[in-house]
Amino acid sequence: MNDPLIIGGHTFNSRFILGSGKFSLEMTKAVIENGGVEMATLALRRANAGGEENILDYMPEGITLLPNTSGARDAKEAVRIARLARELGCGDFVKVEVIHDSKYLLPDNRETIKATEILAKEGFIVMPYMMPDLAAARAMADAGAAAIMPLGAPIGSNKGLLTRDFVKILAEEIDLPIIVDAGIGRPSQACEAMEIGAAAVMANTAIATAGDVAVMARSFKLAIEAGRLAYLAGPGRVLEHKGEASSPLTGFLQD
Amino acid sequence: MNDPLIIGGHTFNSRFILGSGKFSLEMTKAVIENGGVEMATLALRRANAGGEENILDYMPEGITLLPNTSGARDAKEAVRIARLARELGCGDFVKVEVIHDSKYLLPDNRETIKATEILAKEGFIVMPYMMPDLAAARAMADAGAAAIMPLGAPIGSNKGLLTRDFVKILAEEIDLPIIVDAGIGRPSQACEAMEIGAAAVMANTAIATAGDVAVMARSFKLAIEAGRLAYLAGPGRVLEHKGEASSPLTGFLQD
Amino acid sequence: MNDPLIIGGHTFNSRFILGSGKFSLEMTKAVIENGGVEMATLALRRANAGGEENILDYMPEGITLLPNTSGARDAKEAVRIARLARELGCGDFVKVEVIHDSKYLLPDNRETIKATEILAKEGFIVMPYMMPDLAAARAMADAGAAAIMPLGAPIGSNKGLLTRDFVKILAEEIDLPIIVDAGIGRPSQACEAMEIGAAAVMANTAIATAGDVAVMARSFKLAIEAGRLAYLAGPGRVLEHKGEASSPLTGFLQD
Amino acid sequence: MNDPLIIGGHTFNSRFILGSGKFSLEMTKAVIENGGVEMATLALRRANAGGEENILDYMPEGITLLPNTSGARDAKEAVRIARLARELGCGDFVKVEVIHDSKYLLPDNRETIKATEILAKEGFIVMPYMMPDLAAARAMADAGAAAIMPLGAPIGSNKGLLTRDFVKILAEEIDLPIIVDAGIGRPSQACEAMEIGAAAVMANTAIATAGDVAVMARSFKLAIEAGRLAYLAGPGRVLEHKGEASSPLTGFLQD
Repeated sequence: MNDPLIIGGHTFNSRFILGSGKFSLEMTKAVIENGGVEMATLALRRANAGGEENILDYMPEGITLLPNTSGARDAKEAVRIARLARELGCGDFVKVEVIHDSKYLLPDNRETIKATEILAKEGFIVMPYMMPDLAAARAMADAGAAAIMPLGAPIGSNKGLLTRDFVKILAEEIDLPIIVDAGIGRPSQACEAMEIGAAAVMANTAIATAGDVAVMARSFKLAIEAGRLAYLAGPGRVLEHKGEASSPLTGFLQD
Repeated sequence: MNDPLIIGGHTFNSRFILGSGKFSLEMTKAVIENGGVEMATLALRRANAGGEENILDYMPEGITLLPNTSGARDAKEAVRIARLARELGCGDFVKVEVIHDSKYLLPDNRETIKATEILAKEGFIVMPYMMPDLAAARAMADAGAAAIMPLGAPIGSNKGLLTRDFVKILAEEIDLPIIVDAGIGRPSQACEAMEIGAAAVMANTAIATAGDVAVMARSFKLAIEAGRLAYLAGPGRVLEHKGEASSPLTGFLQD
Repeated sequence: MNDPLIIGGHTFNSRFILGSGKFSLEMTKAVIENGGVEMATLALRRANAGGEENILDYMPEGITLLPNTSGARDAKEAVRIARLARELGCGDFVKVEVIHDSKYLLPDNRETIKATEILAKEGFIVMPYMMPDLAAARAMADAGAAAIMPLGAPIGSNKGLLTRDFVKILAEEIDLPIIVDAGIGRPSQACEAMEIGAAAVMANTAIATAGDVAVMARSFKLAIEAGRLAYLAGPGRVLEHKGEASSPLTGFLQD
Repeated sequence: MNDPLIIGGHTFNSRFILGSGKFSLEMTKAVIENGGVEMATLALRRANAGGEENILDYMPEGITLLPNTSGARDAKEAVRIARLARELGCGDFVKVEVIHDSKYLLPDNRETIKATEILAKEGFIVMPYMMPDLAAARAMADAGAAAIMPLGAPIGSNKGLLTRDFVKILAEEIDLPIIVDAGIGRPSQACEAMEIGAAAVMANTAIATAGDVAVMARSFKLAIEAGRLAYLAGPGRVLEHKGEASSPLTGFLQD
């Protein structure tokens, strides 16, 4: 089935985006291979590690880098980090992440909208990380975002798709790819995000804290593909208050 | 990865069991192929359709038939149906299903235990369909069951894995394959059943009521594989009351 | 509003039943008073504590004792404990509890049905504790049970109403009071049990492990009353896929 | 127990706020009485109904009016409506509600922050209705809000406390009363909102669409009180993977 994901004019066959912050460099490579990943986030400090090994050397051929602005506390800082990433050769994609909450690490939608507008005008392919809020998503789309990245739960928590109903609303109402970006802890949750219309899922901690990282990466790959196919197939109806025989022999029951 | 499912001494590579009651005969074939199915249920009335087409002719080479005793209202009727199925050439497997509730179609564990005991002694490979109840599952295991088939929700409802916590207990405590058998409505739910330790999942209505039956069958195949891999990999920990930065750059936040 | 709970011909105005095993004797009294409790369970060993203080002395005037058969591993032991309780002056009520699982402490429905039948014939008012299973509940009703006591979650776990859908089915289908008996951890869960048709709720650990036991007892009292009123009032409809203005001024939106 | 709710220097003994848009005028009065309500919203068009009956005449003595800005599509319109309400004698309280989504009727946090700032400077006691978003709530607090009103689900949907985890974060992190304002469909959901730290709950559709409006109002009153008490008492711990005997007699099990 030909069903590409298109972000900012670029085409991807994989809908599994890797958040790479929690892996060693060699591990990143293994996860990318087992997960069929085509896009991976990159925190600037890692790209710019001076004399030491450079993460760019560990990215397999053909991986699109998605530098994020993690560490930014407002729009200005996010813009500065994004520009620096582009200068370092990380390309035009940028995940805008603005956080000034130190416990739950929740994003600031207002500052994110500002940074999105500035960066989109400078030609970046901007993917803002956000609290799933329809009005904010519309503002980000208007500001030139190429995709919208609502969180499922606080980053690194593995709590799952707590924002289910609001992600579904974004998928229905916003004419951009909706990519669930934080909190997804198990493949079934990634699968559900895709079933309700997400265009892709990012995972990081769920894999980094698994017992076997490579096997979990393969699991996420399959779960995301499964969820996409279910979305395309169109799920069945739910019966609230009864069962329904699936076999003709249950006709006996009415004899 | 070599990870076979073994039931009654028979080895299966697929963990997706098809409930076939709701499909036309041709559709059954398409779902089996797209879903990589190796075992499919069979309601006796269909196998025994007299002069008309016989479902056995539509089962692709190599599919293990799982005749069910649907329509049985007590142990005696279930035993009778099982014997008849064997005589008709359906083999030694049997799914024992005893139902005398006409609205929710919930199984009767006590009668099911009785039928399991009788049929196991007669050399059947008995897979009892049941309310997820640890004491009943132990009794079925003692009676000679080859696998235990707890429901997720009322049959045909697509309501999902409502019995999650109790299926998980069965998977931990019972030394037989636990196969979730009814109510699974979406691939993410099948994936979750596998993540918590189910050995296989049966689906029927979820696929039969989907918009595109063949695509949904493929989705279930992938989701079940994903869930199995996640179980084998060992899922990550969950943080209840905070987030956790996944990128080193969030160090900025503590500057 | 006159809305009594009738069990075995006895009338109660309170729908909050106290499981008393986890409290000191003085605490039991405080909880009963703050919770407006009219029925409390009693484990035999406590009633029969020899030279020491006797729990019966601590039960406020007018409390109906509900001796339970905790510790029984089969029907025979349950029957023996029930008879002993009656001889000790605990009255005709008995909660039949048969458990031979040592980790999750889940009840054995089959043995419980047997004990129910024997004890009902001997004139006990039998309230069987059970896994929420419609066929088993029907058998208990046929055996002479005066009420059915399905669990919400494993005893002492505070995990809540995990069995929601199946308790609701019991409330619809069984013509006896359905009393949710284990696992309820917070008042909102007790309230929900009542909303879906439970006739009463038992709590014990939820209160015993609370920070302030007396205040939590009052909370359960109110939550159970609230849930009952909601059930009687008839809850409103749910809109799946849209919002609906509740103020006429939102007419502006269509201007 | 003396446990007042204080908003903008005003003291309330009731934590049940009535959204009054969906009731006839006489019904509003009945609900206020049965629910022990001390504050009720008021849509301007109703207050200003010209020659006809005026809702103000139906508000029992001592009810604090909470005019809302429903119908406002941006900050400017909200400010205009708020000023008009004050001129009409509705007092200093105002619920700021800015919505320009016509399907799910979700609030616009950015415009709401702007209106909050303007109105707080003009001496209003501002209670902004919002998507539960920590950064936005902080901005509203900084702008002078007297309370924060996150939604539980789309308004009028009765879908419940879908935003549970994020409301809990607001209750922990924001030093203002958190009042859950839309989507609450059943008393158990209101109770849960209070258990996790909400200071009050608003309901409207849940009551307006109930079978018996007055009884449902009483139910909400009790459920909200119960949830508050549970929050104050401190809920008990949850056991994830086992049960725990609550009666000493279960010692039999280890004999």
